[in-house]
Amino acid sequence: MSVNNPQTREWQTLSSEHHLAPFSDYKQLKEKGPRIITKAEGVHLWDSEGNKILDGMAGLWCVAVGYGREELVEVAAKQMRELPYYNLFFQTAHPPALELAKAVCDVAPKGMTHVFFTGSGSEGNDTNLRMVRHYWALKGKPQKQVIIGRINGYHGSTVAGAALGGMSGMHAQAGTLPGIVHIPQPYWFGEGGDMTPDEFGVWAAEQLEKKILEVGEDNVAAFIAEPIQGAGGVIIPPDTYWPKIKEILAKYEILFIADEVICGFGRTGEWFGSDYYDLKPDLMTIAKGLTSGYIPMGGVIVRDEVAKVLSEGGDFNHGFTYSGHPVAAAVGLENLRILRDEKIIERVQEETAPYLQKRLRELSDHPLVGEVRGLGMLGAIELVKDKATRARYEGRGVGMICRQFCFDNGLIMRAVGDTMIIAPPLVISHAEIDELVEKARKCLDLTLEALN
Amino acid sequence: MSVNNPQTREWQTLSSEHHLAPFSDYKQLKEKGPRIITKAEGVHLWDSEGNKILDGMAGLWCVAVGYGREELVEVAAKQMRELPYYNLFFQTAHPPALELAKAVCDVAPKGMTHVFFTGSGSEGNDTNLRMVRHYWALKGKPQKQVIIGRINGYHGSTVAGAALGGMSGMHAQAGTLPGIVHIPQPYWFGEGGDMTPDEFGVWAAEQLEKKILEVGEDNVAAFIAEPIQGAGGVIIPPDTYWPKIKEILAKYEILFIADEVICGFGRTGEWFGSDYYDLKPDLMTIAKGLTSGYIPMGGVIVRDEVAKVLSEGGDFNHGFTYSGHPVAAAVGLENLRILRDEKIIERVQEETAPYLQKRLRELSDHPLVGEVRGLGMLGAIELVKDKATRARYEGRGVGMICRQFCFDNGLIMRAVGDTMIIAPPLVISHAEIDELVEKARKCLDLTLEALN
Repeated sequence: MSVNNPQTREWQTLSSEHHLAPFSDYKQLKEKGPRIITKAEGVHLWDSEGNKILDGMAGLWCVAVGYGREELVEVAAKQMRELPYYNLFFQTAHPPALELAKAVCDVAPKGMTHVFFTGSGSEGNDTNLRMVRHYWALKGKPQKQVIIGRINGYHGSTVAGAALGGMSGMHAQAGTLPGIVHIPQPYWFGEGGDMTPDEFGVWAAEQLEKKILEVGEDNVAAFIAEPIQGAGGVIIPPDTYWPKIKEILAKYEILFIADEVICGFGRTGEWFGSDYYDLKPDLMTIAKGLTSGYIPMGGVIVRDEVAKVLSEGGDFNHGFTYSGHPVAAAVGLENLRILRDEKIIERVQEETAPYLQKRLRELSDHPLVGEVRGLGMLGAIELVKDKATRARYEGRGVGMICRQFCFDNGLIMRAVGDTMIIAPPLVISHAEIDELVEKARKCLDLTLEALN
Repeated sequence: MSVNNPQTREWQTLSSEHHLAPFSDYKQLKEKGPRIITKAEGVHLWDSEGNKILDGMAGLWCVAVGYGREELVEVAAKQMRELPYYNLFFQTAHPPALELAKAVCDVAPKGMTHVFFTGSGSEGNDTNLRMVRHYWALKGKPQKQVIIGRINGYHGSTVAGAALGGMSGMHAQAGTLPGIVHIPQPYWFGEGGDMTPDEFGVWAAEQLEKKILEVGEDNVAAFIAEPIQGAGGVIIPPDTYWPKIKEILAKYEILFIADEVICGFGRTGEWFGSDYYDLKPDLMTIAKGLTSGYIPMGGVIVRDEVAKVLSEGGDFNHGFTYSGHPVAAAVGLENLRILRDEKIIERVQEETAPYLQKRLRELSDHPLVGEVRGLGMLGAIELVKDKATRARYEGRGVGMICRQFCFDNGLIMRAVGDTMIIAPPLVISHAEIDELVEKARKCLDLTLEALN
């Protein structure tokens, strides 16, 4: 990256002298210096060198309604003037949190009637862990403690979130807990071997039943899964997967936690990924799209039956200072109003997602591309050496090379290994989808060139 | 509580039908209905029935600069218009997070040079746990895993936060972890028995050494403690405690984590509780006062030596979507400017804290009061049946009775068992301190009356 603006260097110095960035190699970051993002509008970002960049990741899966939404600024400012903070402990509450709780339940799957607010998706999953174990204790089954997650699932970066997730790099750095076990993921392209996608989907789902029987139904509290794995690489399960999982869940007395942090609030073209797959979860983790990321907020939506059991259990000794924060809640309310009144999710489902998916799939003809998959406003491009065998360019860091070309050519695509992924703002237009796909093709060309 | 405003009932209905409040008994909350806080200005709140209430708890220890700060609204709105969100992953950054990192380090104890941002204090303590274990692994001592906390300490409500803390009610509800052990707290009034405060302070500190030897120095990663326990009941350790702890920490190769979520940013009349007691921690958890609670934010301030080790370790696989959130960071920066430019902390130290402490102690003569203690903008009033023996009114719920009288008479005081605690906004005036103490006395009278 060439630097012409002296301010860029100043910010980079602050970074190396004072900041420990999330998920970073500090030595490498210091040597290279971070790119400084200074402003944004719609689906575009600008860096401190004046480069305009199409944000194919909506910030970090969160800026659903796009940047520069004056309505969100105004409700935040109004709420900050009226009541910038108050807690919800000690038998007090405030209007924004209560009104948002109702608004969230109004769009949630039927029977999911209550919301526990947190500050993030990570805190939401900690809430899930504490809540489901408490629930089973209240039901007289305190031995039901084990939570089954999935390898390469992502459920946040608290200790519990890292443990519920199945990221080996996080597990290796104080990210495991007893009582949390994992089953394989439904990632056909990477792990399906000789099976067809449908065969593999059934096989992957059957691993849940196998694990329940291995641990013992009486010891299992819950199964947690993202409808579509996000950080794992936009892994869209084979069509056979969720129906088989639902069949298994119906057979055993365990709770199902759908982590909707990425899929929630329209990304699949439905309000929730659980609507898309008709999953009927007992608890759903929410964050990101809830406020479009303008103010941090997360939570857990809880099925009526779970809320009822909790309400008979005396104090639930859990919560956060910023649970239901009034400014975040006011922004969340307005964000839901925008999604609804502007029919953004309908437009995703009917117009822009079909167009994005059609245009993205045109990249399948590229020599570097082994698969293009996607659903709603989610997409993944698998980079391979051999399209037929799905063999990778081992050890070449192709994903990182491609990510760098994207950044240098005005496009944010994220690399998960050699899988390039996108999740643009839900408001992206047809013309901007064209821009995204054309830039992506250019960067694929540059990547291929660099490999030869 | 008498309800005249029909909107109050509507909000109460939303609460019982859709909201799971933090740290609440849902059945009881439904029966009683929460009080609805609708606006605030300076150190005062208003509820939906029009009652004006002096907020003796600064929201929840957080609203340091008071409610209604137009400066904070304006920087938040400006930042939301420019860049409402961007992530700090993938070798990018944005100015507000970097500038806040520097501003925080500028006021932090000497040698504490780096900041890792999170969305809350809970996430900060999860960061501490993952960071210190990663640190020791990088130093070639991966067996150093155990973290020593304190009974009745509070470190948040994630699974790890609950486990690091020492709250038995949280431990009972999926709030324990292996590798976390606890030592007694330095709570002389409640647990000092026949020892003098100074004797008890030494005894309580010696429990740390005992525990280190019991676990084995080679297995201990860190000791975590609040300079003054907040949620535990504003427990100000005897004068002998911290010097003895420091002596012990100097003897053993373990890290010290100071949880400054409550003490940080001026509450003691110094920037940090660690300054007040000259603690020289390796890591400090921050939140609350960092943004005065206007936007959720937390973090960990890290000593240079720890940051250096981390920077040699490749990727640190940890972080949050809302780490360093630009709007929170902009508010944090302006909040620090206000604290500094308005000399709020100096005023606390030199004027208002001495006045508050003097006036609070006048309550010592009340028949119900066993002890008044305090420091800076923190205070605690112990309610007892017998002043000489420190015996309680067992089983009468005196603290809750008093809390209710306070609420009904326009004062927020929190009850921790039979200990009433306060932590008003740092900007509270002499006249408002008078109001606080006079209302407190009235409520003590009403409580005593109710007991007879």
